[in-house]
Amino acid sequence: MSRISASRLLSNLDELATIGSLEHAGVQRLAFSDLDLEGRSWVVNRLKKLGVETRIDAIGNLFGVWNAEADGPGLMIGSHTDTVGRAGRYDGSLGVLAALEVLETLIESGERPARPIILASFVNEEGVRFMPDMMGSLYHVGSLSLSDARSAADADGITVGEECDRLAYTGSATIDDLSVDTFLELHIEQGPLLEREGIDIGVVTGVQGLSWWEVTVKGSSNHAGTTPMNLRDDAGLKASKLMTALRTLPNRIPDLRLTIGSVRYHPNLVNVIPDTVTFTVDMRHPSEEKLIHAENYLSDLLSDTGAQRDDPSRTPGSEARSDVSFKSLARVSPCDFASEVVKAVEQAADDAGLTRMRMISGAGHDAQILHRRYRSGMIFIPSRGGISHNPEEYSEPRHLVGGANVLLQAVLRLSS
Amino acid sequence: MSRISASRLLSNLDELATIGSLEHAGVQRLAFSDLDLEGRSWVVNRLKKLGVETRIDAIGNLFGVWNAEADGPGLMIGSHTDTVGRAGRYDGSLGVLAALEVLETLIESGERPARPIILASFVNEEGVRFMPDMMGSLYHVGSLSLSDARSAADADGITVGEECDRLAYTGSATIDDLSVDTFLELHIEQGPLLEREGIDIGVVTGVQGLSWWEVTVKGSSNHAGTTPMNLRDDAGLKASKLMTALRTLPNRIPDLRLTIGSVRYHPNLVNVIPDTVTFTVDMRHPSEEKLIHAENYLSDLLSDTGAQRDDPSRTPGSEARSDVSFKSLARVSPCDFASEVVKAVEQAADDAGLTRMRMISGAGHDAQILHRRYRSGMIFIPSRGGISHNPEEYSEPRHLVGGANVLLQAVLRLSS
Repeated sequence: MSRISASRLLSNLDELATIGSLEHAGVQRLAFSDLDLEGRSWVVNRLKKLGVETRIDAIGNLFGVWNAEADGPGLMIGSHTDTVGRAGRYDGSLGVLAALEVLETLIESGERPARPIILASFVNEEGVRFMPDMMGSLYHVGSLSLSDARSAADADGITVGEECDRLAYTGSATIDDLSVDTFLELHIEQGPLLEREGIDIGVVTGVQGLSWWEVTVKGSSNHAGTTPMNLRDDAGLKASKLMTALRTLPNRIPDLRLTIGSVRYHPNLVNVIPDTVTFTVDMRHPSEEKLIHAENYLSDLLSDTGAQRDDPSRTPGSEARSDVSFKSLARVSPCDFASEVVKAVEQAADDAGLTRMRMISGAGHDAQILHRRYRSGMIFIPSRGGISHNPEEYSEPRHLVGGANVLLQAVLRLSS
Repeated sequence: MSRISASRLLSNLDELATIGSLEHAGVQRLAFSDLDLEGRSWVVNRLKKLGVETRIDAIGNLFGVWNAEADGPGLMIGSHTDTVGRAGRYDGSLGVLAALEVLETLIESGERPARPIILASFVNEEGVRFMPDMMGSLYHVGSLSLSDARSAADADGITVGEECDRLAYTGSATIDDLSVDTFLELHIEQGPLLEREGIDIGVVTGVQGLSWWEVTVKGSSNHAGTTPMNLRDDAGLKASKLMTALRTLPNRIPDLRLTIGSVRYHPNLVNVIPDTVTFTVDMRHPSEEKLIHAENYLSDLLSDTGAQRDDPSRTPGSEARSDVSFKSLARVSPCDFASEVVKAVEQAADDAGLTRMRMISGAGHDAQILHRRYRSGMIFIPSRGGISHNPEEYSEPRHLVGGANVLLQAVLRLSS
């Protein structure tokens, strides 16, 4: 059975991590920065050395096209090399370097699969400086126009288009001639489950949906010393009751993940009863039906207080009549990956002699976007402590290598 | 029966409010500022016009001494003319101008009370720029040394001493030769009770004690999408349980006022489980015993979590073993005013034909400090909506005048 080169993969991970390395630990290659371009150029040079044709599209996505002369539809593998502000070294980089390693292994083996194999590295998956995240894959599948992507601006008003032009970041190539029909992405789990279960490989069956809300509770600001308890209108107390009720929701909806991550009091002084409390609710579920169930609970709970949902389409004149208001911050439907890709990953893990379990991705990934156009799937490997987006992000070498071998075996199965 | 001049009092309140008046509404005369000096100088000039001897002490407290030739011990009346950043026009100013009005009424009447009457205007009651608050009265009673007061520094490192020297704010006078034995302060309620009950005069029997705490709860920061509910260590959830338990305390301890005014989440992001939540607890009670009861409840509740109290006297090596820690931010014992002063205020309200009720002060005042040296008391008048420390602070003219008349009657009773 074919195997990737463990030492070459690990050495490539080391080498790419020197680009944008931070003083003490960690990496920073924000999308559309000089370091991001340098990271992508490093991959381009590796592909060129292998004799793989490189193509760059109008937003800067990189494709390494190999075996284009094969008849079958294309099989795409990869991820992204941009990072968050103080990132670890694996995240998207592992998926791109494992794809590179698969190409190199296949080229060395002399075998020719039945379909073109395309390494893909999508731009701006992280969405730190320029929103939306997953920008490159959204553009690739046609969900985001080039002009919308280029006009995305950072906090200083600088646009993606300006940075692309400054860096000569983009090209005019496409891969539309290859009729790609499958996408597969290797990634670290960014969660604790595989490590906790002692399992090598996560066979990802889908990405959970996401529903973000912001709730604002109004009361009256008054002196903490002079205002008797029964004459108070304490926004903190009212918000607390709502938060407590919301936090019980995962007990009633299995697999719901609910997080109250941000709470802001105003005026936030020790001796003043707060007049405003704003908090966020992050709800995630693999099932669209259950996510809607959770949203309805939230909406009913807040409506029981007489809350008005902030809705631009609301008829004029229907001013908020209540001291509670809420609005949606983000909404993404769950994604179910293609069953044939999921099965191929399971078989590939067996081929590689690794333990495996099916799981849902808790975080968003390019694969869920690409699934709109291609049948897609993902492979997870364990993350120590579930830590990611942090210099302490770490996966053991055996898992990095194992994940790349599963990617190789899945490519062989899917292209045979 | 003698009456103060309503028109003169109201006109003086208007005139003093022009010093430091803000653009739209409200007043700002921060202690030890040019405007604070201008406000005090306005009072000094009025006293001089009346032929009242003015004395300024080493921290800038102003005393207007009248009828010093009387045999009895001195009777002091007054408050403060410094303000918070965006203040209303009454707060301490009413107490000083009502004292001025009492002096002017007595002088006009030709009557001579049996004791010296001393108008007092204490510096830096508010403690906005320089801590502690009630600085002038603390110095006067000997609870704060001159050097400690002068070395108090603002956020820019400028000291009280430097500002006093720059403004030629201080003097060397004392009133120790007058053997003052009584202090009486008229003040707006700064709370909603008198307005709500429709009562003219609050006969203040004491000032509730105050106990401020800061509680820090630690958890683990993790990804809101990838971390299952049962593997979380959510500082927000743990803090919420503690806050909910604390908020029930006023149900068990009557007259306890408990406020959670400040809550801070870290990192305070919608999609990150918080690793640290810090919140404050403001507890007040008129009874020292009940305040200690509340403090013990708080301490027991937090200790049940294994919390360590931050205590500089803790033996070295006893590091926090818990994810909850707490520390005291401030502690003031309750003050019970002198019963003979309280009774004099009641009789004075009856003399003036005004309705009255006994009440506790929820806020801190110079009178509670002066009570350490003199038998003291306070007179409250209604505050609209309980609002103070705000340009919207308002008391009706009839209550401003009524309060000053009660002060006059109480002075007559206490000095007869």
